[in-house]
Amino acid sequence: MKTIKIGLLGLGNIGTGTYKTLEMNRAEVESAVGTGVEIVKILEKDTDRDRGITVDKSKFTMNPDEIFEDPEIDIVIELLGGIEPATSFMLKAMENGKHVVTANKAAIAANYHQLMEAAKKNNIIFRYEASVGGGIPILGTLDGPLRANKYTEVMGILNGTTNYILTMMTKEGLEYDVALKDAQDQGFAEADPTADVEGIDAANKLTILIAMMFGEYIPPENIPTTGISKITKEKIEEARSNKCKIKLIAHAKRNEDGSLFYEVRPMYISETHPLANINKEFNAVFVRGNAVDDVMFYGKGAGPLPTGSAVMGDVIEIARRIL
Amino acid sequence: MKTIKIGLLGLGNIGTGTYKTLEMNRAEVESAVGTGVEIVKILEKDTDRDRGITVDKSKFTMNPDEIFEDPEIDIVIELLGGIEPATSFMLKAMENGKHVVTANKAAIAANYHQLMEAAKKNNIIFRYEASVGGGIPILGTLDGPLRANKYTEVMGILNGTTNYILTMMTKEGLEYDVALKDAQDQGFAEADPTADVEGIDAANKLTILIAMMFGEYIPPENIPTTGISKITKEKIEEARSNKCKIKLIAHAKRNEDGSLFYEVRPMYISETHPLANINKEFNAVFVRGNAVDDVMFYGKGAGPLPTGSAVMGDVIEIARRIL
Repeated sequence: MKTIKIGLLGLGNIGTGTYKTLEMNRAEVESAVGTGVEIVKILEKDTDRDRGITVDKSKFTMNPDEIFEDPEIDIVIELLGGIEPATSFMLKAMENGKHVVTANKAAIAANYHQLMEAAKKNNIIFRYEASVGGGIPILGTLDGPLRANKYTEVMGILNGTTNYILTMMTKEGLEYDVALKDAQDQGFAEADPTADVEGIDAANKLTILIAMMFGEYIPPENIPTTGISKITKEKIEEARSNKCKIKLIAHAKRNEDGSLFYEVRPMYISETHPLANINKEFNAVFVRGNAVDDVMFYGKGAGPLPTGSAVMGDVIEIARRIL
Repeated sequence: MKTIKIGLLGLGNIGTGTYKTLEMNRAEVESAVGTGVEIVKILEKDTDRDRGITVDKSKFTMNPDEIFEDPEIDIVIELLGGIEPATSFMLKAMENGKHVVTANKAAIAANYHQLMEAAKKNNIIFRYEASVGGGIPILGTLDGPLRANKYTEVMGILNGTTNYILTMMTKEGLEYDVALKDAQDQGFAEADPTADVEGIDAANKLTILIAMMFGEYIPPENIPTTGISKITKEKIEEARSNKCKIKLIAHAKRNEDGSLFYEVRPMYISETHPLANINKEFNAVFVRGNAVDDVMFYGKGAGPLPTGSAVMGDVIEIARRIL
C-alpha cells in the first residue's frame, strides 16, 4: 500500500512537536493507518536550529509551491500560525487537491467560509482538531461520537495563559500584574499577552466551536468579549466568599427561541462545578447535549506534544479515509 | 441514496433510550450521515408496554432470524444485555454480514476474541462505544483523535452505582448500608447490587479499555478486583484526614519493563486530582498518553439517553463508512 506523504508548513514549536510525535510514535501511527506515514517536505527557512529531532536537510524548502505542486504529497499540515500567509497557503494546498490539517484558530475563525467552501469545492478533507483545546480531542468528538445530539450549550476554559494567571491569583493570592509576570516567566504567556488576556484567542476558538456545534458562523469580532486584565485580588476574594472561582469562560448556548447566545468573559463558577477545578495551564470544554446530557473534556490546551498529538490524530483520520 | 436500516435487539431501558434518541434527533443523525436512518425491526416480546415512544407494532418480532436474515438490514444493535444469548446473536448477525453495535460490556469482556475475529472474518464493523462510560465518548476517542499516542495509563471511575454510594458516604457521612439503600431507592443500584459493588462491572469495562489501549486481552476474572462493600465511614474519614477521597478505580498501566499492571479497587485519590471531584452517578476516565499527556473525559456513565447517544454515535460512524 502507498505511503502517506506529508508536506509540513513551519517547523517552529508546534511543527517540531508534530514532527516529534510522529518520530516517537511512528509504530502507533502507522499501525492505526495500516501503511507508512512520512513527512517528506518542510517549508522552513531556519534549517540549522537544534530542535532535538532528526530532520534530513534535503526535506527543507523555502518555496511553498514545491509542496503544493508535489504530486506525491497527500496531506499538507499548516503550522505557521497567524492569518496570513497561512490562509492563502491552505487555500492553495486545497486547490492542488491536498488534504489539509491545521492548528490555526486565528486563520479559521477569520476565514471560516472561504476555507470550508474551498475544502468542499476541491473535495478534500480539512481537519483542525488542534485549533481548539490543543491536545483535547473536542472537535472530532463533537463531529463524531456525540453527533447524535442536539447541542444546547458549551462552556470552555479555552486559554491556558489566562487560566494559569487566574489560578495563581486564586491559589497564591497574587495581584494580576504579578501573576502575569509569573506566567511569562514560566513560558505560559507571551511578551505581548494581549490576544490571550483580552480574550481574543478564546473568542477565535468559540467561533470554531459554535460553527461545529450549531452550524452558524459568528465572526470572533462579533462575540462580546471581556478579558481578565481588570480582575483584581478583591474580585477573586469576593468570588471565594460566594463559594465560586473566577474563570475566563467561552460560552455559547441555543436559546429557547432558537437564537444563539455567545460571549467570552470572566465568570463566577460554583466551586462544585467541574470547570471550577480546572487549574493552571489546563483547558476544559463542558458540553451539554439533549441525549448525552453533560460531558466534559479536560487536558492540555497547548504545548508542542499535546498539539502534535491532535495534529497527528487528524492525519490518521484522513489517511484512514483516503486509503 | 439508500436508507440505513437497523434491526434492534431488545427494547428495554437502553433500547428505548436509543429509539428515543433517534426519534428526537433524527434531523441531526440523518444530516450527519447524509441519508435516512430507520429502525425497521425490533426483537422484543413485550409489545404493549408504554415506553413514551411511537413504535409501529409491525416492527416487532419474536424471531431473531427475521432480523439476521433480512437482506435490507445494514446494522444490528444488540441491547439485550447479559452474555447469552447476546453473544450468539451478535455472532449470527456478523455471519450474515450485518455491522454490529452493542452496549454490552459483559458479552464483550467474556468473548472478546471470538467477537473481534468474527467481525474481521466477516468484514463487518463492530462498535461498542456505550459499553464503557455510557455516554462518555471514550473508546472512539482512544481509537481516533488520540491514536497517535503511546498510552501509558488509564484510571477510570467506570461504575455509577459505586460512585454514588461513595459520594453519599463522603458528603452525607452515611454508613455503607444506608448509602446502598439510598442508591437503590434513587434507581442507581439494582436489587442485587453484587456486580456493581463488588467491582465486576468495572472489571468488565477495564478489560475493554485495556484491549483498546494496550492491545492485550485480559479476561475480567484475571483482573485483581476489590469492591466497595468493606468501605466504612471510618475509612472515608481517614481518607479525608489525608486530604483524599475514596473512589473505586479501574486502573491499568504499562510498566517500564513493558508488562501491564491492572486492578480494580477502592483507592485514595488526592482532593486536587481531577478524579476526586467526580461525584454521584457520574463517570470519568483519566488517560495518559506520551504525546497528549493527561486527558480526562467526564459524563453520565449510564441512563437510557446518554447510552442512546453513544449507540447512535456508533451508528453514524458505521453509516458514514459504508456509504
